[in-house]
Amino acid sequence: MITKPLLLTDAEIELLHQEVGRPSLMGQTIEAHKNEVDAFMILPLDVPEHGEAGGYEHNRHKQNYINMNLAARLFLITKEQKYASFVTELLSLYADKYLTFGFHVQKNTNPTGRLFHQILNEHCWLMYSSLAYSCVASSMTAEQRQHIISRLFEPMLDMFTVKYGHDFDRIHNHGIWAVAAVGICGLVIGKREYLEMSIYGQNRNETGGFLAQISKLFAPSGYYMEGPYYHRYAIRPLCVFAEVIHRHMPEVDIYNYKDKVIGNTVEALLSTAYPNGAFPALNDASRTMGITDMGVKVALSMYAKHYASPNTLSLGSHILSMAKIQGAVWMHPCGLALSKSYEAVSSEQEIGLPFWPSTELSEGPNGDRGAQGFIRMRDNHGDVTQLVMNYGQHGMDHGHFDTLGITYFNRGHEVLREYGFCRWVNVEPKFGGRYLDENKSYARQTIAHNCVTINERCQNDFNIKRADAVHGLPHFFKVEDEKMAGMSAFANDHYDGFEMQRSAFLLQLEELESPLLLDLYRLEPGENSQGQHQYDYSHQYAGQIIRTNFDYNSHQEVSPLGNDFGYQHLWNIASGQAKKSALVSWLQDNSYYTWLGTSSNANTDSNSSCGDIIFTRTGANDPSFNTRSEPAFILRSHGQSTLFASVLETHGYFNEEFEQSVNARGLVKDIEVIGHNQVASIVQISTEKSSVIVMISNQPDANENTEHNVTFNEKTYRWTGFYALEIIRSQATKTLQEK
Amino acid sequence: MITKPLLLTDAEIELLHQEVGRPSLMGQTIEAHKNEVDAFMILPLDVPEHGEAGGYEHNRHKQNYINMNLAARLFLITKEQKYASFVTELLSLYADKYLTFGFHVQKNTNPTGRLFHQILNEHCWLMYSSLAYSCVASSMTAEQRQHIISRLFEPMLDMFTVKYGHDFDRIHNHGIWAVAAVGICGLVIGKREYLEMSIYGQNRNETGGFLAQISKLFAPSGYYMEGPYYHRYAIRPLCVFAEVIHRHMPEVDIYNYKDKVIGNTVEALLSTAYPNGAFPALNDASRTMGITDMGVKVALSMYAKHYASPNTLSLGSHILSMAKIQGAVWMHPCGLALSKSYEAVSSEQEIGLPFWPSTELSEGPNGDRGAQGFIRMRDNHGDVTQLVMNYGQHGMDHGHFDTLGITYFNRGHEVLREYGFCRWVNVEPKFGGRYLDENKSYARQTIAHNCVTINERCQNDFNIKRADAVHGLPHFFKVEDEKMAGMSAFANDHYDGFEMQRSAFLLQLEELESPLLLDLYRLEPGENSQGQHQYDYSHQYAGQIIRTNFDYNSHQEVSPLGNDFGYQHLWNIASGQAKKSALVSWLQDNSYYTWLGTSSNANTDSNSSCGDIIFTRTGANDPSFNTRSEPAFILRSHGQSTLFASVLETHGYFNEEFEQSVNARGLVKDIEVIGHNQVASIVQISTEKSSVIVMISNQPDANENTEHNVTFNEKTYRWTGFYALEIIRSQATKTLQEK
Repeated sequence: MITKPLLLTDAEIELLHQEVGRPSLMGQTIEAHKNEVDAFMILPLDVPEHGEAGGYEHNRHKQNYINMNLAARLFLITKEQKYASFVTELLSLYADKYLTFGFHVQKNTNPTGRLFHQILNEHCWLMYSSLAYSCVASSMTAEQRQHIISRLFEPMLDMFTVKYGHDFDRIHNHGIWAVAAVGICGLVIGKREYLEMSIYGQNRNETGGFLAQISKLFAPSGYYMEGPYYHRYAIRPLCVFAEVIHRHMPEVDIYNYKDKVIGNTVEALLSTAYPNGAFPALNDASRTMGITDMGVKVALSMYAKHYASPNTLSLGSHILSMAKIQGAVWMHPCGLALSKSYEAVSSEQEIGLPFWPSTELSEGPNGDRGAQGFIRMRDNHGDVTQLVMNYGQHGMDHGHFDTLGITYFNRGHEVLREYGFCRWVNVEPKFGGRYLDENKSYARQTIAHNCVTINERCQNDFNIKRADAVHGLPHFFKVEDEKMAGMSAFANDHYDGFEMQRSAFLLQLEELESPLLLDLYRLEPGENSQGQHQYDYSHQYAGQIIRTNFDYNSHQEVSPLGNDFGYQHLWNIASGQAKKSALVSWLQDNSYYTWLGTSSNANTDSNSSCGDIIFTRTGANDPSFNTRSEPAFILRSHGQSTLFASVLETHGYFNEEFEQSVNARGLVKDIEVIGHNQVASIVQISTEKSSVIVMISNQPDANENTEHNVTFNEKTYRWTGFYALEIIRSQATKTLQEK
Repeated sequence: MITKPLLLTDAEIELLHQEVGRPSLMGQTIEAHKNEVDAFMILPLDVPEHGEAGGYEHNRHKQNYINMNLAARLFLITKEQKYASFVTELLSLYADKYLTFGFHVQKNTNPTGRLFHQILNEHCWLMYSSLAYSCVASSMTAEQRQHIISRLFEPMLDMFTVKYGHDFDRIHNHGIWAVAAVGICGLVIGKREYLEMSIYGQNRNETGGFLAQISKLFAPSGYYMEGPYYHRYAIRPLCVFAEVIHRHMPEVDIYNYKDKVIGNTVEALLSTAYPNGAFPALNDASRTMGITDMGVKVALSMYAKHYASPNTLSLGSHILSMAKIQGAVWMHPCGLALSKSYEAVSSEQEIGLPFWPSTELSEGPNGDRGAQGFIRMRDNHGDVTQLVMNYGQHGMDHGHFDTLGITYFNRGHEVLREYGFCRWVNVEPKFGGRYLDENKSYARQTIAHNCVTINERCQNDFNIKRADAVHGLPHFFKVEDEKMAGMSAFANDHYDGFEMQRSAFLLQLEELESPLLLDLYRLEPGENSQGQHQYDYSHQYAGQIIRTNFDYNSHQEVSPLGNDFGYQHLWNIASGQAKKSALVSWLQDNSYYTWLGTSSNANTDSNSSCGDIIFTRTGANDPSFNTRSEPAFILRSHGQSTLFASVLETHGYFNEEFEQSVNARGLVKDIEVIGHNQVASIVQISTEKSSVIVMISNQPDANENTEHNVTFNEKTYRWTGFYALEIIRSQATKTLQEK
């Protein structure tokens, strides 16, 4: 039986001890954990019987394991006996009571535990409590140890591997918690067979266990198909267990396993985050989950220790910038390595916003099922703009139907926004904190996203099985140029009889204070889908409408915009017919945004109108106030083959408190579709100082060397590669850039 | 001619110089001002011609005077010549151009200047620029000085005192800017006659000038009838000019003038602020104006120097707590005094939230036209709850029709909220930043407030003249008891034929984590108003509805709630009939709130219903998206003489990012009206642990010794004084507290 700390050597403990009271990230972390645990230890010990998800009992068990895990390490690091006593007493109390609790009544598909309504939470409990035990066991009596092992740990191991043994080898993100808990607990009580079973699976045949999990759960890019919200939840046991294996089964060489899959997937997760540390809410996700999550703290520290080169931990490092946002490290030697690097660099220069390189994360086991694109650009003031586009897979049961959907972030805010899931996690009066009906009827629908909805239906008709079978088709992802970066993809299987292509760019024009978002969304009906179609090009924004360039009617009475596919939840607040292009400007916190959009239908419409703008707000058909009231606007255009084109300009500054406002009107004046066909799309943007022609290839088989040659209105456009940009300044100097 | 700094002696400059680079508030202030001015000085000098309010030109002139004023002092304090050169060059440029600019075209009732569209802004410009000049004049050549005086300062003085001389003596809050600018500039150029005119008025007969202004603008309590938003704008020239008079005309003894009216009115302004430093938006006001405003920084520093006792600057001082929120001081010896006190105290103990004593600020020239009540209570965790009730005067042209309206603040947020004005200050595309139509049609109406609206009409029928003629009648204001504090007032002239009384309390019950808000609103129709009336008891909240104790219909189509008096702007989102009492619970950021309300009509209604709950949202009849979309709920009850009673409980904690939720349901279970008549109102509150009977006097002539004796349902209630509280614990121990 091991009664030594599983994750710390004596020498490491001593190094951590030296950080106590220091102003380093590690010193601050220790101090914060002390305050947290001290406050908790004032409360009487409590091991309550069954309660509801999100209720007191659930929360208490969770707090118990979190605090035991911290207290046990604080005992070693601060050398204060009170922390060991707390852990011993609480574990003993659990051992007294555990077997007297029956199993919870099963309410959904998850097996139930004795403490929690689903064993997932019981896995978490065991992993943390086992680690805690390993830190304090040496201070216990033999009787205490035996009591905890026989009345608590062994019954739990038995439950997970025998009673629920059929589930143990399932390849699933929750499965990582199961194998980590069982492997760690087995090691702690001296039964290495559990560790081996956890690593290699029950049948040692690569169909289960940790190595199979990490081999199969992630794409070669490291991306996890359910998205960052679920990814970050699996990353915690993944990193902790990897570190255990690294220390106790070095022959696995876990950190180099499968081309460094562990470092790879951590990097993929981190690289999705917005510059403020929040994760884009891809698929079912909260809008506020971010890198300050406990698991991501562990992951960043582990990554810094085992994968980062001295170069990536130097000045301007996005790893250190993320540590700054976290304001803490993992209370472990890995965290100490990160803390030391941070200390060295920050003494030389202030650490700014994370500026991760733009990255395209492929999807699917072989990386050939589309991708998620993340483009970032930094402006002259150090602000980082991020554009995210989904042209990968559907996220299974948590998937949203928003292939080709984008989100857009700058100046500390998501600007083109993701609604996230419809769920109030752990809020017991809101359906026990579980997913609400409106998650399906609204949040996952195409119209809830920054996307185009065809004929008021959802992509793949909201059929999950069908959606899981298809994926986006990457066209190009080009980010080498500091002044222009873009990505383009097709989605041809998401609406019967329609091909779609979206191309989105960040463009740093000389006269603009921030990068400009340029977006082209092309819809091509197939032979069986001829005739007029309704295309809804929707934009989820936040803030206050400041101005438009068209008249609209604010409706005297408002009705839902439609009957199904999410439209039933949108109030049709106001609408009006746009001219050749539509301008919608709004204020979000301290910044102004001006959107200028058009459609190719403006070129053929008898009124030269690009369509109608409809202003909506969520909240219709919401009998229990389950949705948030949020605004959006839609450019609705009727046509056959159609190209939407828009720019979004970020400009000016407003401060209500200090009553300051500058540059409330943007500099971009117009956008026009010159033409589009199977070969290319040509649009023109006019600002106060220049005219910009953008030429984009629509040919799926194009490459860097493909020559394009299209003629619209008797003018011919020629370029080589995926796209080209021609900037004509008012002084009539021309620049042609080809990509 | 004076070429010495007007507000600084050589010795004081030296003391300020010693703060450069120090971590004190003054050191931080100097550093921040340096960064601000250095950034501005990189731009080319610009003295633009006419522009629109809120436009570039307007902002540039404003930035010019702000930066000159700072740069001039930075020259003295840092001894860096570049700051003096900047001021001299910019002032010289103004002198070159000023007389070449014509006057702006007049657009509203304000006279126009040569730089700005209204002379108010030109007054600001002159006050700051004159002070700046005084700091750098000694470094100028005689020619430079003469140029600035003859081509800039003298023409301005002439404009203010001759061209617009008829306006100079008007007693008005803007008038303080005029006299301060003229007095200071006169002194700077050696023409004391302007100083004297500014202090004593043009005719030296107490109908104009600074002394008349400060004697007549404020109530004896120091309150300014338009509210804190307009008050803080006048406080800046008031304090600066007072300090000038103090130094250059000591015979006025300005800081002791009229029973220390200056200290008194600064204290009144500060004492209105919420614990986070924001001012309650009484009357026309933004919701974000607060003590970080430049003028309030000057005022707090001036107050600390000339009025605060060592005792009020010791531990727990609300003055120091406010300085902490400001994070800066006035860059002046007054600010240095505050900075020194702050440094001394904060080295001993962390400075917490401001906890101003509860205060009742009387209104009217003699303090007999009602009052504004501010009650504060601090809970065990140090959080400060604040209750504000308006039972004073109407605020003239900026007045809202909300006598007996309340607002409620805790845990860093306004919970029962004020909408504030309907205006986007300085946002040029929003009607030039001016007041919008919806300010009258919605924001100032009774229904936009936490108030009772009778028969769907506004108080005083939205007649300003009529509203200015009446005021609230204070009943009691009792704040001695740490566990219970309350105020009560009548408003009998605000609706024809109705008398109204509101009594609001903060109650710290043992079992509750935060003070409970208890609110009683009584409506008594007169002889000519018999029959049924519609009473709308409205609550402006923020956040997400979590649960109710009654069924409601979310409407399939939504219409405005009414046609006039603000109702036309409210969407009727959902409604339902409540039982004897109605429960509405919501989540605002990290806290849960549960409101339980009832009306006496529940005792007579055939369904035992206290009325209907209507959930609304602003935005109807808003053709230009001028309003913010904000929710409210109304308890609508039909009856004759009616008492509304409610409690608002603050409980629990929610953190979406970390997915934590505790105590999502409150402990208060019910509220009931036992009875009410001309003598008293009796209500009962039930919590999980106790039953609380509250007895309140409704007799306008009651006092501390009045004996009350009322019988309802054959039970008699007896007490002495304004109110009494009886708490029956589940263990059946009784406590009777009389007030």
